[in-house]
Amino acid sequence: MAVYTQVSAEAASVFLSQYDVGKLIALKGIAEGVQNSNYFLETDQGQFILTLYEKNVDPNDLPYFHSLLAHLHAAGCKVPRFIEDRSGGWLRNIAGRPAGLIEFLSGVSVSTPSEKQAYETGAALGQLHEALSDFTQIRANILGVNDFRPLSQKCGNANLDSILPGLAGRISRECDYLEENWPSHLPVSAIHADLFPDNVLMGDTVSGLIDFYFACNDVRGYDIAITHAAWCFSADGKTFDYKISAAILHGYNSIYPITDEVRDALPILARAASIRFLLTRAYDWINTPADALVTRKDPIAFLKRLDFYNENVNIFAK
Amino acid sequence: MAVYTQVSAEAASVFLSQYDVGKLIALKGIAEGVQNSNYFLETDQGQFILTLYEKNVDPNDLPYFHSLLAHLHAAGCKVPRFIEDRSGGWLRNIAGRPAGLIEFLSGVSVSTPSEKQAYETGAALGQLHEALSDFTQIRANILGVNDFRPLSQKCGNANLDSILPGLAGRISRECDYLEENWPSHLPVSAIHADLFPDNVLMGDTVSGLIDFYFACNDVRGYDIAITHAAWCFSADGKTFDYKISAAILHGYNSIYPITDEVRDALPILARAASIRFLLTRAYDWINTPADALVTRKDPIAFLKRLDFYNENVNIFAK
Repeated sequence: MAVYTQVSAEAASVFLSQYDVGKLIALKGIAEGVQNSNYFLETDQGQFILTLYEKNVDPNDLPYFHSLLAHLHAAGCKVPRFIEDRSGGWLRNIAGRPAGLIEFLSGVSVSTPSEKQAYETGAALGQLHEALSDFTQIRANILGVNDFRPLSQKCGNANLDSILPGLAGRISRECDYLEENWPSHLPVSAIHADLFPDNVLMGDTVSGLIDFYFACNDVRGYDIAITHAAWCFSADGKTFDYKISAAILHGYNSIYPITDEVRDALPILARAASIRFLLTRAYDWINTPADALVTRKDPIAFLKRLDFYNENVNIFAK
Repeated sequence: MAVYTQVSAEAASVFLSQYDVGKLIALKGIAEGVQNSNYFLETDQGQFILTLYEKNVDPNDLPYFHSLLAHLHAAGCKVPRFIEDRSGGWLRNIAGRPAGLIEFLSGVSVSTPSEKQAYETGAALGQLHEALSDFTQIRANILGVNDFRPLSQKCGNANLDSILPGLAGRISRECDYLEENWPSHLPVSAIHADLFPDNVLMGDTVSGLIDFYFACNDVRGYDIAITHAAWCFSADGKTFDYKISAAILHGYNSIYPITDEVRDALPILARAASIRFLLTRAYDWINTPADALVTRKDPIAFLKRLDFYNENVNIFAK
């Protein structure tokens, strides 16, 4: 949520001279995305997002993200496209960073979704999965079920227990369960893997799914579980909204039917989603000074979700 | 350069419902302004800036800023106006902060101005001063010549000397000189007081002067000196550009003639401008951890300017 690399108007104009999109008239750094620097860029012909890929993005992954978005756009999904430069390229350099010019999609991210918005989001995720069923490029999930225990070890037991006494043991036991029972027999495809409300732009309906930089191959139903964990709770994880839950699942199912075997696995996939965000938040919590300007997100909000999913295994039943 | 307060799309929609500007279609936090939170806000009728006034802005000053911008706009200056709500008001609350909806001006801030851009900026400052000659509201300058010594004491001699050995003594002697020789006989009016390239939006010519939150009453020529110190040097203060200097002064003079008594005072006013930014940068430097995400601006870049102005008293001569 920061602009890590400054782009001057002069540099942006030189960059734009390689594209056929008009002349620069506005450039504002925006607080969007976790891993990249983003600018709202306006020309006399339109609005764009200029994204600079920072050090924590592997440049080797960029062609995957480009292909994924091109594939989804061709299939009619509402995702931002990379704009091609005059030579047909989509990746250039600016201010010493790899950078792309990306379609600007209107719409706003909601904080407290309505049932209709949750239904539309579920449907958009179903459309995404349908479109990805014939996408053949592969990117490994670096935050998959087998990465939870190593990440927990990087956090350190003492640090985890300083967040909440007993947390390290709890995570370890959960990893035992997830590793032993992971439903690897289920269909695997490219997934978004981070479809929080922040990453869904809404107008009257869904106007854009954005921020595909965690996209990877994994069990497809895991994406439903992540979206469920991201949308159906209050931010602190203490309150579950049954109507939003039903709306997400119905919306998805209306476009891309949830098979029985996927439905049966949703409880464990939702536990995995809870552990995944619990761990990355715990890692950031431990490694961000309490007085830093960045807001640390509370890992316990995902422990609450984990508790809920453990205690309510029937919420995904038909 | 940060978004301090988060505004949800829902809160922005409620806020907008008090205005006659259309329906929200996009909302992006932007990294602009030092003291406030700013959002790029788009509706189906236009583009706006939503500004939230943070704790370091005195709410009692807001009517002054509003009047100043309205006065300047009425006089034909290119400044952003506050948008009136349906009841004719211009200040509301959002996310617990006083907030205003402000006209979005296109244009970009240049990093390396051309002579033409410097000339146009000088002319825009001259137009601003001409327009402010009959503006009667008053706001004290809290960073005026008599505030330099107290600010230096807040920094602390040891801290200043840790930035550069001897810096505290140098500042103290400069304060002696400025306090004794300050040209208080010169015309006083409202001034911008912070017209760095960041705060000038450019298209083919100047399309907007922005960020009036340091505006105050002081010797009018001091504003010329601040603009001169902000525009005529490389960022590190080591290189002075005579052509940019001449262009700024000629541009200003073409609209609002510089009298001999103001011209004679520009060397001391430029020394004061150098000390003012040297001190606020030193204060931020001392009070910002070296590893903070905010970039600390080097105070020494303004010591270099001070040295230059001391050694080159003839640069302002006709």
